[in-house]
Amino acid sequence: MTAKIIDGKKIAQKITDNIKEQVQKLDKKPCLAVIIVGENPASKVYVKNKSKKALEVGFKSIIKELKESTTKEELLEVIEELNSNPDVNGVLLQLPLPKHLSEKDFLDKINPIKDVDGFNTYNAGKLFKGEKPYAIPCTSKGVINILDKENIEIEGKTAIIIGRSNIVGKPVADLLLKRNATIIQAHSKTKNLQELTKLADIIVSASGVAGLIKKDMVKKDAVVIDVGIIRDKNNKLRGDVEFDEVKEIASFITPVPGGVGPLTIANLIENTYELFLLQNKA
Amino acid sequence: MTAKIIDGKKIAQKITDNIKEQVQKLDKKPCLAVIIVGENPASKVYVKNKSKKALEVGFKSIIKELKESTTKEELLEVIEELNSNPDVNGVLLQLPLPKHLSEKDFLDKINPIKDVDGFNTYNAGKLFKGEKPYAIPCTSKGVINILDKENIEIEGKTAIIIGRSNIVGKPVADLLLKRNATIIQAHSKTKNLQELTKLADIIVSASGVAGLIKKDMVKKDAVVIDVGIIRDKNNKLRGDVEFDEVKEIASFITPVPGGVGPLTIANLIENTYELFLLQNKA
Repeated sequence: MTAKIIDGKKIAQKITDNIKEQVQKLDKKPCLAVIIVGENPASKVYVKNKSKKALEVGFKSIIKELKESTTKEELLEVIEELNSNPDVNGVLLQLPLPKHLSEKDFLDKINPIKDVDGFNTYNAGKLFKGEKPYAIPCTSKGVINILDKENIEIEGKTAIIIGRSNIVGKPVADLLLKRNATIIQAHSKTKNLQELTKLADIIVSASGVAGLIKKDMVKKDAVVIDVGIIRDKNNKLRGDVEFDEVKEIASFITPVPGGVGPLTIANLIENTYELFLLQNKA
Repeated sequence: MTAKIIDGKKIAQKITDNIKEQVQKLDKKPCLAVIIVGENPASKVYVKNKSKKALEVGFKSIIKELKESTTKEELLEVIEELNSNPDVNGVLLQLPLPKHLSEKDFLDKINPIKDVDGFNTYNAGKLFKGEKPYAIPCTSKGVINILDKENIEIEGKTAIIIGRSNIVGKPVADLLLKRNATIIQAHSKTKNLQELTKLADIIVSASGVAGLIKKDMVKKDAVVIDVGIIRDKNNKLRGDVEFDEVKEIASFITPVPGGVGPLTIANLIENTYELFLLQNKA
């Protein structure tokens, strides 16, 4: 028996369809503002997709395109303007920034209640403490969506998270810990990865190393969530997991593309909507 | 060969001796303010010990004793007063609070740069992100002090942390992760504890379950740090670890009492001193 292949597109569609339906009933519409600095072509595509999805569900969308040479002061001013604009509910600073700007100088300047990516220190602290942040980083939320959608039990299970970024690895670990999983957090300095992955009921791989997770590293019937997304020499998208062989042994597996990926934008939309509700409740 | 028994008192003494020496050279003296609400006898002893140690190293010490029936507004006012007093460098709210007060309403009101316990959300977020908080929770810092003092390698090692409190379990995990250990975070819902502890080069136990860690759960030559402190039926202090049998197999072990305990106050003193320096640099 091979693993059930999880259709992330379908789960994402369900999330955004639901929000679209809610938004139709609203007089005032939620608004997502995205700031992009410079000409990074991949970033431009991401920003366009985010804006497109926002418009699709009936949100307002603002894109602030700033030139490559934008100064720290100029960028801070734009953030401040969006913070103080009562019509804007979510503010997203597209990363990476040009080299002369350091993201640390800006992420904490976004008002925590508009921090739609969940990257600022206050929201990270809430996650660390097991409390409810205003917003949870979108990709991490996607991992949990998948587990919940497929009714995969988390409590008491052993989950290994490979990778420790502030955007995926660490928030996923804290979210699963809060749900009472035992957590193994592995990374590039881990020496006995196979020994550890073999113990895991749930594997979440976010290493960015194509094909890192092979069949002989996976326990029978484990759930395998692939957060990697790497473009190989032949311009083909690949994940962290050797999909064809691992699906023979896992119980659930996400493909790349079409697994976790689509949930990132869906959760950005959901986060914007939730921030809108919070801001209009107060 | 039995384990080296780590003398936490000695390590603590070295830290406070060093600060005492530095403080003698200062014109202005660091000041630690402790707030205690109500009559919890254990809390009263802790507060007295903290104040005593602060005075010993040449700090000023303020104790704000508030009556059991203190209201939320009254406590917030005291915190605000200490926040705005330029002579106060560290503000500590002794926990637990009386039942009618919720610590969540107060910990974030302490100015992050005076948050000497490192419990507020901003400082927790810094820890989560692998950045430098203004202060790191004192007991967690003590665990790292011990490892460093004994020249125990952390990078690439597998460390299991048993317990996931915001005060010990979670900060220790993040501090060891930052130092490139592979982390296993276990807790009361963990089903295969022995399988996991057996893998670990470093065991940090903060479960509060007396005698949880037995010899057959420990890998030969593992480092065993016992953060538990439980008073048993015979009024004897015990740790999480079955000391007499585990010391036969571990390479390093901390006793209870006299292991991690003394480092908690020493790090409170060190945190106060570091906050003093930060505040007087700005």
